[in-house]
Amino acid sequence: MYSFDRRLQYPVKVASPDPAFARMLQQAIGGVEGEIRVCMQYFFQAWGARGPTTKYRDMLLNTATEEIGHIEMLATAVALNLETAPTSLQEAGAMDAVVGAVMGGENPRHVIEGAIQKHILSTGMAAMPVDSDGVPFNMSHIYASGNLAADMYCNVAAESTGRVLAVRLFNAAQDPGMKDMLQFLIARDTMHQNQWMGVIEELGGTAAMPIPNSFPQDMENQQHNYDFFATSSDGTLPPPARWNEGPSVDGKGTFTIFPNEPMGEEPVLGPARPDSGAQLEQM
Amino acid sequence: MYSFDRRLQYPVKVASPDPAFARMLQQAIGGVEGEIRVCMQYFFQAWGARGPTTKYRDMLLNTATEEIGHIEMLATAVALNLETAPTSLQEAGAMDAVVGAVMGGENPRHVIEGAIQKHILSTGMAAMPVDSDGVPFNMSHIYASGNLAADMYCNVAAESTGRVLAVRLFNAAQDPGMKDMLQFLIARDTMHQNQWMGVIEELGGTAAMPIPNSFPQDMENQQHNYDFFATSSDGTLPPPARWNEGPSVDGKGTFTIFPNEPMGEEPVLGPARPDSGAQLEQM
Amino acid sequence: MYSFDRRLQYPVKVASPDPAFARMLQQAIGGVEGEIRVCMQYFFQAWGARGPTTKYRDMLLNTATEEIGHIEMLATAVALNLETAPTSLQEAGAMDAVVGAVMGGENPRHVIEGAIQKHILSTGMAAMPVDSDGVPFNMSHIYASGNLAADMYCNVAAESTGRVLAVRLFNAAQDPGMKDMLQFLIARDTMHQNQWMGVIEELGGTAAMPIPNSFPQDMENQQHNYDFFATSSDGTLPPPARWNEGPSVDGKGTFTIFPNEPMGEEPVLGPARPDSGAQLEQM
Amino acid sequence: MYSFDRRLQYPVKVASPDPAFARMLQQAIGGVEGEIRVCMQYFFQAWGARGPTTKYRDMLLNTATEEIGHIEMLATAVALNLETAPTSLQEAGAMDAVVGAVMGGENPRHVIEGAIQKHILSTGMAAMPVDSDGVPFNMSHIYASGNLAADMYCNVAAESTGRVLAVRLFNAAQDPGMKDMLQFLIARDTMHQNQWMGVIEELGGTAAMPIPNSFPQDMENQQHNYDFFATSSDGTLPPPARWNEGPSVDGKGTFTIFPNEPMGEEPVLGPARPDSGAQLEQM
Amino acid sequence: MYSFDRRLQYPVKVASPDPAFARMLQQAIGGVEGEIRVCMQYFFQAWGARGPTTKYRDMLLNTATEEIGHIEMLATAVALNLETAPTSLQEAGAMDAVVGAVMGGENPRHVIEGAIQKHILSTGMAAMPVDSDGVPFNMSHIYASGNLAADMYCNVAAESTGRVLAVRLFNAAQDPGMKDMLQFLIARDTMHQNQWMGVIEELGGTAAMPIPNSFPQDMENQQHNYDFFATSSDGTLPPPARWNEGPSVDGKGTFTIFPNEPMGEEPVLGPARPDSGAQLEQM
Amino acid sequence: MYSFDRRLQYPVKVASPDPAFARMLQQAIGGVEGEIRVCMQYFFQAWGARGPTTKYRDMLLNTATEEIGHIEMLATAVALNLETAPTSLQEAGAMDAVVGAVMGGENPRHVIEGAIQKHILSTGMAAMPVDSDGVPFNMSHIYASGNLAADMYCNVAAESTGRVLAVRLFNAAQDPGMKDMLQFLIARDTMHQNQWMGVIEELGGTAAMPIPNSFPQDMENQQHNYDFFATSSDGTLPPPARWNEGPSVDGKGTFTIFPNEPMGEEPVLGPARPDSGAQLEQM
Repeated sequence: MYSFDRRLQYPVKVASPDPAFARMLQQAIGGVEGEIRVCMQYFFQAWGARGPTTKYRDMLLNTATEEIGHIEMLATAVALNLETAPTSLQEAGAMDAVVGAVMGGENPRHVIEGAIQKHILSTGMAAMPVDSDGVPFNMSHIYASGNLAADMYCNVAAESTGRVLAVRLFNAAQDPGMKDMLQFLIARDTMHQNQWMGVIEELGGTAAMPIPNSFPQDMENQQHNYDFFATSSDGTLPPPARWNEGPSVDGKGTFTIFPNEPMGEEPVLGPARPDSGAQLEQM
Repeated sequence: MYSFDRRLQYPVKVASPDPAFARMLQQAIGGVEGEIRVCMQYFFQAWGARGPTTKYRDMLLNTATEEIGHIEMLATAVALNLETAPTSLQEAGAMDAVVGAVMGGENPRHVIEGAIQKHILSTGMAAMPVDSDGVPFNMSHIYASGNLAADMYCNVAAESTGRVLAVRLFNAAQDPGMKDMLQFLIARDTMHQNQWMGVIEELGGTAAMPIPNSFPQDMENQQHNYDFFATSSDGTLPPPARWNEGPSVDGKGTFTIFPNEPMGEEPVLGPARPDSGAQLEQM
Repeated sequence: MYSFDRRLQYPVKVASPDPAFARMLQQAIGGVEGEIRVCMQYFFQAWGARGPTTKYRDMLLNTATEEIGHIEMLATAVALNLETAPTSLQEAGAMDAVVGAVMGGENPRHVIEGAIQKHILSTGMAAMPVDSDGVPFNMSHIYASGNLAADMYCNVAAESTGRVLAVRLFNAAQDPGMKDMLQFLIARDTMHQNQWMGVIEELGGTAAMPIPNSFPQDMENQQHNYDFFATSSDGTLPPPARWNEGPSVDGKGTFTIFPNEPMGEEPVLGPARPDSGAQLEQM
Repeated sequence: MYSFDRRLQYPVKVASPDPAFARMLQQAIGGVEGEIRVCMQYFFQAWGARGPTTKYRDMLLNTATEEIGHIEMLATAVALNLETAPTSLQEAGAMDAVVGAVMGGENPRHVIEGAIQKHILSTGMAAMPVDSDGVPFNMSHIYASGNLAADMYCNVAAESTGRVLAVRLFNAAQDPGMKDMLQFLIARDTMHQNQWMGVIEELGGTAAMPIPNSFPQDMENQQHNYDFFATSSDGTLPPPARWNEGPSVDGKGTFTIFPNEPMGEEPVLGPARPDSGAQLEQM
Repeated sequence: MYSFDRRLQYPVKVASPDPAFARMLQQAIGGVEGEIRVCMQYFFQAWGARGPTTKYRDMLLNTATEEIGHIEMLATAVALNLETAPTSLQEAGAMDAVVGAVMGGENPRHVIEGAIQKHILSTGMAAMPVDSDGVPFNMSHIYASGNLAADMYCNVAAESTGRVLAVRLFNAAQDPGMKDMLQFLIARDTMHQNQWMGVIEELGGTAAMPIPNSFPQDMENQQHNYDFFATSSDGTLPPPARWNEGPSVDGKGTFTIFPNEPMGEEPVLGPARPDSGAQLEQM
Repeated sequence: MYSFDRRLQYPVKVASPDPAFARMLQQAIGGVEGEIRVCMQYFFQAWGARGPTTKYRDMLLNTATEEIGHIEMLATAVALNLETAPTSLQEAGAMDAVVGAVMGGENPRHVIEGAIQKHILSTGMAAMPVDSDGVPFNMSHIYASGNLAADMYCNVAAESTGRVLAVRLFNAAQDPGMKDMLQFLIARDTMHQNQWMGVIEELGGTAAMPIPNSFPQDMENQQHNYDFFATSSDGTLPPPARWNEGPSVDGKGTFTIFPNEPMGEEPVLGPARPDSGAQLEQM
């Protein structure tokens, strides 16, 4: 069960509203690297957590709940940045003369026609659960596999691409309030990267690989489980590297280069059946 | 540039076709944990690879190219498992009597009505780029962030959920040919998990965190970058764990528990503008 | 900012797990009538709320926060119902003999092949943010228009289709725990229908129509704003009804039947331009 | 069965083509508030209409058929506004000098690069079934629940967001022909809001709530069906309002404020099964 | 502008309702080979038709309008087939005894749990704009390129896959009314295949290829415009065939087999920029 | 099985990087007319090919494999065109003065805010599997029907819209390297249009219509299989044309104009059932 506080987790201040930056921030809300994704991913992992201890469920709930507040912060930032957006082409035209001061050098007509058009038309100047191109977030990006280690790597991946995105937004930002907010979000991504790695370490780190460790490894194919398949058509093999020679990272095999060659046959499917809607030539 | 061999990378044999198992295999083709995903993900990472060396591009191309062959194997397996599927309700009814021998205990009418309906109606008994529920694969799942370390964690995540899926399919499989094929694919996932971890190790492992390492870490918020935010409403704090006390996994901070509290204010957005299509009460 | 309680808002008990019912419950999680939708819809309406008072933002936050707990309850119910699901065809076959007692009359092989396949393959027996057909929820269904009255009608619509769904699930349910949980959710939908209607009443009810009321109504076309267009090709007109004769519901016009006829001309677009990639015959 | 007239329902004239405005109009075609949505929604409601009378089916068919003509009008408007769009960067550059007269102050290079790029590349200057960001319309937005009252509220919601959008487009428009066309569409939305409210009134209005009224209301949970759940973590209760005290809008209960507290327990799921692909630590 | 007739274009009769067949019919409504697709495709092609004559616009409007009636017929067929579907598991269980007569041999519990679940939960036994797996139709499938010849081939493709689907449905159907309806729809697909081929013939047939014919063909690369690229890694060349030797089908070149080899170089992208969020090793 | 060569199939050179053109090129990668589509379509057709000969499977594999190289070329072109894109608003502002030389007349601030925003935020200046509006490619566009002739028409349609797109990109391009690359791709589309038409000719051309030819044509409705249905509401019939009079294109019938009229009845569905969640008035 959940409760809310009217205040934000961290201050969100915008001194100079910039409608185009509002659109950029949308990537951190509804992009695949964004906050809706991590929030919902941690919730669904928590709600499906199985095992002898509830500590992982608890940990996930703590952080999932934190992430709702991040969506809220970003949604607030979008709304504040949109406050000076023009709503008509005429208004945009009239603003052209004073454009530098009002919108940070932005061409108002460009703004209304291009970047933030959907915000004007569909939201009345508020955030949407879409990315910076207006593509709605699709919940298929919520990875919750039922395997704790796999899920932790999904989470590290999400926080890594998330921090990359936040850094890019920080680099693109000009407003001090926005920079401060992003520095906070970047810091939280640092923590969350470390946090999920902490779970992985507790689960044995690379020694617990391959994931899932509940499958008896001697049941997998033993000829090719540590082979680097070289698939270059000219037969050149890659130079030695950490991933193609020496002990494998999980310590359970030895990396070997295997020049790819067909071990299977040319497949032959049966003819199309008479009532299958195929062409006669296929029967 | 690419070339093909008519033969399969590894044998695909089906002694007892099972249309329902064909549908399950679709998850490994067009599911988010499936082979189209890793194939395209590695290709787009390779095609956008930047940096002083081409070795990562090469490595990615080697494996991306291998993965096309995996899609091919699974598509062949789907087609072979569908060979005995009934195409009409009448045929299904007629088969009911001999159902045990023909279809592994399957109720033919169930098959045509439920699981593989779309395969009958849309493909003439062949694989589709959809998951086991018939949902088409969406290319937004191709993660290629431009940050090599982030991408490697995305790849480990993909191969971890991928091996989990392959193990589940192996557990559900009955046909020896299908079990053998899945043992091969499981082994390749083992290698690929290790391979991407090898790159991460070469890039410094956890010491290179937080990702991206090109952002000066002293520019992120320093108060909360290693805090575990406890968001439980009753104020209970989590018991000590690897992720909330002691040195952080990246060795650059100390995990601390921080009872969540609002640092920001209640947000106040400006009133709706007269021409914004809001209700008068909002102005 | 948000916090959580480890306990559920309302008890979720499952005496006789039913994997097929788990799949049905997914519609209430990730279907367009489901809880993710209302939760996120109320949050985005709250986060973008503009106007002289924060009371609507507060009201929306109260209910959005409640809805997270509803998703949690349903996700828990799905996981509990999946507990006895078979994970292999062999297991399913073995269970056939004892099927009545174990799975409520369910054919285990049917279950693994059909309805809950993706839960077995992708989640390890947990809820997913998808509907009962496995289609992931798409965030384009979050309606937050920036107009308070329009949003309230969107909310009434969501709670009406939501209660219809919950009633259908109640009718399909057998387990007393599930029936009890659904009775609670149905009751909450009753409240929420009334709650949003309360706001509409406060905003003036039908007298505040047409929405938005900030657009001067004399600027809309005055010939056809209360006409029922009869578009039947045989010219028959509909019998008198509340929506085609008498005073309009908003009290600002009179319903009239207007036999549809073209007021415009046949449109003529310019020819295709030479460099537009059209066929020569179109230029 | 259906028939067509070559002429438009209402005149569509464009004196000064504006390619950027064409892109805005797309929201009214393929946006979730647009005309494809209402057209298809009314059709599917009509085609599935059940009950002792055909009058609702007839009413829905009348209006659904009208809406095809609205899509047609908007598609024509898009094509006419695109007529002067540049098709190459060189053409755009050459037009820069004469830009004010030709394109209403628009920067031609901006146009080709930004807003209408997909119209140039994919349609040869014609309308598409996409929104103003180029996102294709998804048919999951066709709400047809089988409950007449719920559907009517869905329709009021659609026409309310639709009129809000049309007003915003009117505010952004400059061309007198476009303004005239939008005034007509705004007027039709006025009628349709009233029309669906007329049906609701005929069905009993708020007295027929909660929807569906075919579920015996004494079977829903009686403790919380008219409670406003206050979920603020500091325990503050909302001030009195129409939606939290006094008689409920449906007249069947009394609004009461209920401070949210967990009535359920902390959920405990069973451990992961041995063959479920989980990590050993989860078993 | 459009009008409707209350009657169907062709009789739709269902003697023995079959809920599972209803689900199959959905593929012909909301599948990519279905009627929504062709209806909307022909409308958007018509509404964007450019050129010296309106005859193509007219032709397209005639057929697009016909197709609305086909969706209506199929939606009616779905609703009629669903009439006997059970709405609860209890009802399904009770029906088991009389299953042969009532539902054509169908297991009622299977029906409610599997195939038609979403119809019960979301529609109250009516058609939806989804395919046979419940995946909603996505309007990106409306092909209207602005090139008349390209569009005609898109239409032939649509009617070819459409007739294949209709034939498969006919083969799966048992009810005489359904078979009769499908024979009508199959006949219409025959006409429409011929109709679009008639336009292609009028536009010059294969002699008008390559499409678009408005691009001066001597501006395309002249070395490889009629080469069959052989991409087999073992260098084997395909045996002679109509598509790799002799005059090309458009009569403007000669088919030649070209063993694929790289004409380009290994691509080298610049290093990642310092502020691009990449890892330091990439700079 | 597949292999790769590090070199490109054809040279990709960019003398003057143009970030906005990079975005346009995305349509040829992830647009519905793009290269991912044809590549995957030909692969899935090949992998499901049935019939007495493997020559069609081989042909499809040859060309599908070629197409991977086309995606690679375009992805390389996108990355090269993005090399000079600004990553911050400040950088964009500073570049304004030197804009003509650096970015071909482009306004840098426009670039970062509008067209290529997602490339900056999500990829670090690399190609994505999305279209020019940033909409991800959806695999439902892979048409592989199991009927060879239908598939060939799908392929001709894909290569026709593909060549139209490539011509439009050529017309919009300024860089000589890009023009050269597009001339190659246009030439390949010429070949592929001819190639698939070659298969159609081998299969009998229009004489093999209607597709599928395995359905006995005398089983389709014989009254209307060559009728042009005139659906104009004023009863005007279309003037004589190749598609409404004379012998049909397949030579098996005679085109006739049929004034559309309802042959069916007004449909009557049964009342809503008591437990179906409908409103009482519908029962």
